[in-house]
Amino acid sequence: MRVARIQEDGKDLLAAGQGDRLVALDGWQGPADPLAVLLDAGLRGSAAAAIRAGRELDPDAVTFRVPLATTRKIICVGLNYADHAAESPYDRPKHPVYFLRVDTSLVPHGAPILRPAVSEQLDFEGEMVAVIGKTGRAIPMRHALDHVAAYSIFNDVSVRDYQFKGPQWTLGKNFDATGPFGPWLVSADEVPTGAAGLRIRTRLNGAVVQDADTDDLIFPVAELVARASEAMTLVPGDIIVTGTPSGVGFARKPPLFMKDGDVCEVEVEALGLLRNPVRDEARA
Amino acid sequence: MRVARIQEDGKDLLAAGQGDRLVALDGWQGPADPLAVLLDAGLRGSAAAAIRAGRELDPDAVTFRVPLATTRKIICVGLNYADHAAESPYDRPKHPVYFLRVDTSLVPHGAPILRPAVSEQLDFEGEMVAVIGKTGRAIPMRHALDHVAAYSIFNDVSVRDYQFKGPQWTLGKNFDATGPFGPWLVSADEVPTGAAGLRIRTRLNGAVVQDADTDDLIFPVAELVARASEAMTLVPGDIIVTGTPSGVGFARKPPLFMKDGDVCEVEVEALGLLRNPVRDEARA
Repeated sequence: MRVARIQEDGKDLLAAGQGDRLVALDGWQGPADPLAVLLDAGLRGSAAAAIRAGRELDPDAVTFRVPLATTRKIICVGLNYADHAAESPYDRPKHPVYFLRVDTSLVPHGAPILRPAVSEQLDFEGEMVAVIGKTGRAIPMRHALDHVAAYSIFNDVSVRDYQFKGPQWTLGKNFDATGPFGPWLVSADEVPTGAAGLRIRTRLNGAVVQDADTDDLIFPVAELVARASEAMTLVPGDIIVTGTPSGVGFARKPPLFMKDGDVCEVEVEALGLLRNPVRDEARA
Repeated sequence: MRVARIQEDGKDLLAAGQGDRLVALDGWQGPADPLAVLLDAGLRGSAAAAIRAGRELDPDAVTFRVPLATTRKIICVGLNYADHAAESPYDRPKHPVYFLRVDTSLVPHGAPILRPAVSEQLDFEGEMVAVIGKTGRAIPMRHALDHVAAYSIFNDVSVRDYQFKGPQWTLGKNFDATGPFGPWLVSADEVPTGAAGLRIRTRLNGAVVQDADTDDLIFPVAELVARASEAMTLVPGDIIVTGTPSGVGFARKPPLFMKDGDVCEVEVEALGLLRNPVRDEARA
């Protein structure tokens, strides 16, 4: 099941993928909360019926919202593809490298990525997302995927000069409107175990700039969940943004950064296509 | 005004400092939300009356809660006292070094700091907190303190081996129940401008292990607010945990780590005393 949140006339509405179509669940009486639907067998059953009766939408005319009704922890992973670690100024990690995002950095599918006035180094990072559906701490690796309810797509847009102002990446990863997330949550049963073996591509203005396979993750989803839970209780709605493959702009010669008018797309096999225009912040 | 949240019979209640006494606001009709009280002139006026009529509490018998009813961004600062930067494996920073905490790491005054089963390197870091009361982005330094509504105390307890497993400190700063915060919010009008010139001390089992002055911050509160807001919109309820002075356990020879049965206190002049016992997680 692929479930999204959209907005019509100022109200949140549940939407879903049905084959190649996007449909609105007009008669839906449950919460406009994709994760709540996926986690409850009863809601899921009634959603399936509502999807069959859904009203077809023009995906290009729809206003999407971030697919989680409530944002919890946004746990990102750095240096998790070997080729990307090699193009970065860091060693290949021996343990997952986690960093955090705040909710003010998120934007939905279709909304502009804002290029801040203070930097010209706005870079793309296409990534696959695992969405936690079950609370846990110190989760053994063999049970870790039981805690993942869904998958989605993220563009971990980074402001490189701010990322590297000091030893922690926080500022460069947390500019307002630099975290495209969506368009929907895809339930775990629709993808291979651990969302492995999915082709992941990023395109900037139509040109492919990243092209890899989620099989190439140094630390696969189960290990990312297990290792994070050594420290933190994971709760439903937490997301793990699993890292980007090689090809990012700052590692290119010459560097390739995003600017006003660009369009950036991240496509992950079975998970969909996340597309966002880029706008200068002052003009947004 | 010094306002806390406490719990009695499973219900949240507003409490406040009145001179050296702690009083419960039994008849209080407003929200049990210290920041909401401080931000609204009307609520503040009625709270002042309720404090005068308050019921005196035994501070040692009270169950405190974290002083924010809603947790937003928890923005921490590393290496912000010159002596501490010198005792760490890092250079003195040229720009504030921010990192983030998640809400699952917070604990209130009086509640146990949990020493995880996976590490023996549990370290204290006494810190002063600035609480944002007004939304802003790209805030000029000269207006930054207008965005700070209150101050408080934090113990940025760190699991050192996890902090240094890789280039980002995230895991070692985010174990469950390693972020004591409180006991209350002290309104900005009760302290010197920018909470400068306040003595800050950490004691472990009564012995002073950190002793400094908030005048020694490399980046003072106004600059921390202004620089963070270059990237992120700051909103009411966001907190900035301003960094720890020298004396932390891992920099000592031999190292001094916390263990089950210890008591750690952080005292900041004019802001109060944050005291927490340490318990092994399995026994908590």
